[in-house]
Amino acid sequence: MDLETAVTYLRTHQTTFLEELGRYLKIPSISTLSQHHSDVLQAAEWLQTSLSKIGLENVQQIETAGNPVVYADWLHAGDDAPTVLIYGHYDVQPVEPLAAWTTPPFEPAVRDGRLYARGVSDNKAQHFSHLKALEAMLQTAGRLPLNVKICFDGEEEVGSPNLAPFVAEHQLLLAADFVVVSDGAMPQSDQPSIDYALRGVVAAEIRVTGPGRDLHSGSFGGSVHNPAQAVAEIVAALHHADGRVAIPGFYDDVDTLSPAERELLQKIPYPLSQWQQETGVEAPWGEPEFTFFERMTARPTCEVNGIWGGFAGEGFKTIIPAEAGAKISMRLVENQDADKIADQFTRFIEQLTPPTVQVAVTVQAGADAAVTPYDSLGIQAAFRAYEDGWGAAPLLSRGGGSLPIVATFQKLLGAPFVLMPFGLDDNRHSPNEHYHLAHLEKGMVTAVYFYHHLATAVTENSVR
Amino acid sequence: MDLETAVTYLRTHQTTFLEELGRYLKIPSISTLSQHHSDVLQAAEWLQTSLSKIGLENVQQIETAGNPVVYADWLHAGDDAPTVLIYGHYDVQPVEPLAAWTTPPFEPAVRDGRLYARGVSDNKAQHFSHLKALEAMLQTAGRLPLNVKICFDGEEEVGSPNLAPFVAEHQLLLAADFVVVSDGAMPQSDQPSIDYALRGVVAAEIRVTGPGRDLHSGSFGGSVHNPAQAVAEIVAALHHADGRVAIPGFYDDVDTLSPAERELLQKIPYPLSQWQQETGVEAPWGEPEFTFFERMTARPTCEVNGIWGGFAGEGFKTIIPAEAGAKISMRLVENQDADKIADQFTRFIEQLTPPTVQVAVTVQAGADAAVTPYDSLGIQAAFRAYEDGWGAAPLLSRGGGSLPIVATFQKLLGAPFVLMPFGLDDNRHSPNEHYHLAHLEKGMVTAVYFYHHLATAVTENSVR
Repeated sequence: MDLETAVTYLRTHQTTFLEELGRYLKIPSISTLSQHHSDVLQAAEWLQTSLSKIGLENVQQIETAGNPVVYADWLHAGDDAPTVLIYGHYDVQPVEPLAAWTTPPFEPAVRDGRLYARGVSDNKAQHFSHLKALEAMLQTAGRLPLNVKICFDGEEEVGSPNLAPFVAEHQLLLAADFVVVSDGAMPQSDQPSIDYALRGVVAAEIRVTGPGRDLHSGSFGGSVHNPAQAVAEIVAALHHADGRVAIPGFYDDVDTLSPAERELLQKIPYPLSQWQQETGVEAPWGEPEFTFFERMTARPTCEVNGIWGGFAGEGFKTIIPAEAGAKISMRLVENQDADKIADQFTRFIEQLTPPTVQVAVTVQAGADAAVTPYDSLGIQAAFRAYEDGWGAAPLLSRGGGSLPIVATFQKLLGAPFVLMPFGLDDNRHSPNEHYHLAHLEKGMVTAVYFYHHLATAVTENSVR
Repeated sequence: MDLETAVTYLRTHQTTFLEELGRYLKIPSISTLSQHHSDVLQAAEWLQTSLSKIGLENVQQIETAGNPVVYADWLHAGDDAPTVLIYGHYDVQPVEPLAAWTTPPFEPAVRDGRLYARGVSDNKAQHFSHLKALEAMLQTAGRLPLNVKICFDGEEEVGSPNLAPFVAEHQLLLAADFVVVSDGAMPQSDQPSIDYALRGVVAAEIRVTGPGRDLHSGSFGGSVHNPAQAVAEIVAALHHADGRVAIPGFYDDVDTLSPAERELLQKIPYPLSQWQQETGVEAPWGEPEFTFFERMTARPTCEVNGIWGGFAGEGFKTIIPAEAGAKISMRLVENQDADKIADQFTRFIEQLTPPTVQVAVTVQAGADAAVTPYDSLGIQAAFRAYEDGWGAAPLLSRGGGSLPIVATFQKLLGAPFVLMPFGLDDNRHSPNEHYHLAHLEKGMVTAVYFYHHLATAVTENSVR
């Protein structure tokens, strides 16, 4: 296969691709908000059409208990060639606070070499890059060097609750030698990375109820346990003063980081100044015996994603609120079991709650962490692909975020994963999410090289 | 003066009065929300027109730095007759949560002998009852037994920030021998009460800021001090585990309750079952060495009126919020100085805040508690008025709420106050605020007797 021709195809079609991606980004496919359900379905439709145009086959939306999975394949590379499953997600985060966006989140806008839109980095532009790599090869060579299956998820931002059952049910359809995912961030534009580990996640909601209605704080203040105070007391008890998580048993199954791995992570060029610039915070916080980068990637955490109760408007309203609540997510590392952590969390909250209020804990999603050997053929191929396509040797790193489905693929399909992010931090999950236009082309080219090197490596190693 | 004729006038005009009150209640005069500013002004207009119709004189709206004070007087009772200043407020609380209202808050509706509307009990129907008592006397006798001044406030629900300067500036205009206020609640419909004390209040807002924007909790979780967690930690530290307020110095100036007063408060027929029914809570909470009624009325408190931060919508959004906050109000008792408490609170919050986040504390309002001797002529007159007009001997009690201006009147005008509530708990500050129709007539009749007995008592005692 003439790689140069495919790469030239990519470089000469950037304007068209940008327009095409823009149409995809205009669809507000926010999966956590039910009023956007039809938009989520529209994004799946858009993908289905797009996959067919590229020349993939067997294109279909497969029903789940939630949003459909968009599937396609191209299986004509021969039995000796490996099969790669490409995972991505077509749903996006909510946009609040809307006022903080410079341009509307679903009206893609280019400024300073960046494309601004909700979902552009997480994850539309990243999986779009893989699709354009496939298109380039199919358009120029009429074939792919390996067998490809597409599995695009519509519920990643709500924890992919229906994807594990889907994978279990469709193991033959999805069977693959490798799973490749481009999501998350490389440290810097000229310093790509390959993630060999991702954190798991458990997300839960706590609701504390007290009085039957909001009470006048003058009339009843001092005699009623205030739910807003009670939720603060519960949330405050989730951490020790030094930043360690206080949930009993939380660290029981966490492995010690080996000196070798700590050394590997030390090599990541992510200085404090960059952390300060990206977070806007002066001083890191957290477990004192770990570096801030280890805390972000290799250690489990417990985060308050939201807290509410009573009156938050202008001025004041002197009430004892009837209820209050908090949303909590915990990031997990390898060996921690999401179900066990969810149970420990729930028991701890119930035990913390005094008899003067009621509490309800709802666990909304759970997924184990995922880790894969540094030296798999897939990671080796990704390494060479960044060298050839991005122009820089990648680092091996851990990702702090979660792709719940990665652990599932590994468990159910026996397929090792290759996490090759094409983005930067890019304000994912924040206002003004964006994607560097330079990364768009580089990601597409790197993907072409990845498929080439993976096919070659597997054939050479006769690993099948 | 023929009291019976005035009382008959009141009894035969209830339907007209209800219609009139309904028009007043339709005005959404929410003082804490700037978008309701014109409604607040409309309520002042409504009062001005109403006071003129009744036959009061010198009717005017007097400008303040905020909403106008509505003033009127009738000063023809002679120099030997006492002068009473009637205080009320024409602003109301916000309505959230709107969905909890059975009928819309500004569409007055009668159900089961109750009139439902925001602001009906707090305070429109209560001061309206005094106006109708004056109308009845002026219409039937052509005169009042004492001199009357009206001072209606448009900012009570935001802590009357401009009323103290107003009173200081208009001491001659407002000069009076007694201040009468009907606000707050009697224990039961057949058990009226007279409050000889009210709590003061300090209201403040805490804003905790951390990251420059909402961060992805996967990318940065574990390395950043989460503002929602920090605000929970700060709020949780405001109380000791047993319910005592933990602000250093908070109780320094609080007097011990005398055995005599504790005995007096014990006599209030407010059983636990009624507290349970009104609050919807099973077990009281708070300072263990005080009864729940003492905690509600005679002890200072610290209440979380609201807490917020991050994502509170449907589903979840895994972020570290950029900021979080809480609204706190403290109820104060006599001898506590509102300014000193505000300083102690601010210092404590600043001291609690770790260097990994920033905090801003804004004190929004402050007022000292007020207390008056049980046996003043005003309280004696109110006692007889309830016996004659309500049909039951009142109890002497403390009110847990705050009327910031009462302490100011006492200090600047030297006028003792008479707090004679005509309402019940009535869901003031809660959804479905209401007022018992039976209380409307009884309050008006009791007000007629009050003015009569006060005039008689003063004349008999030659106290002027």
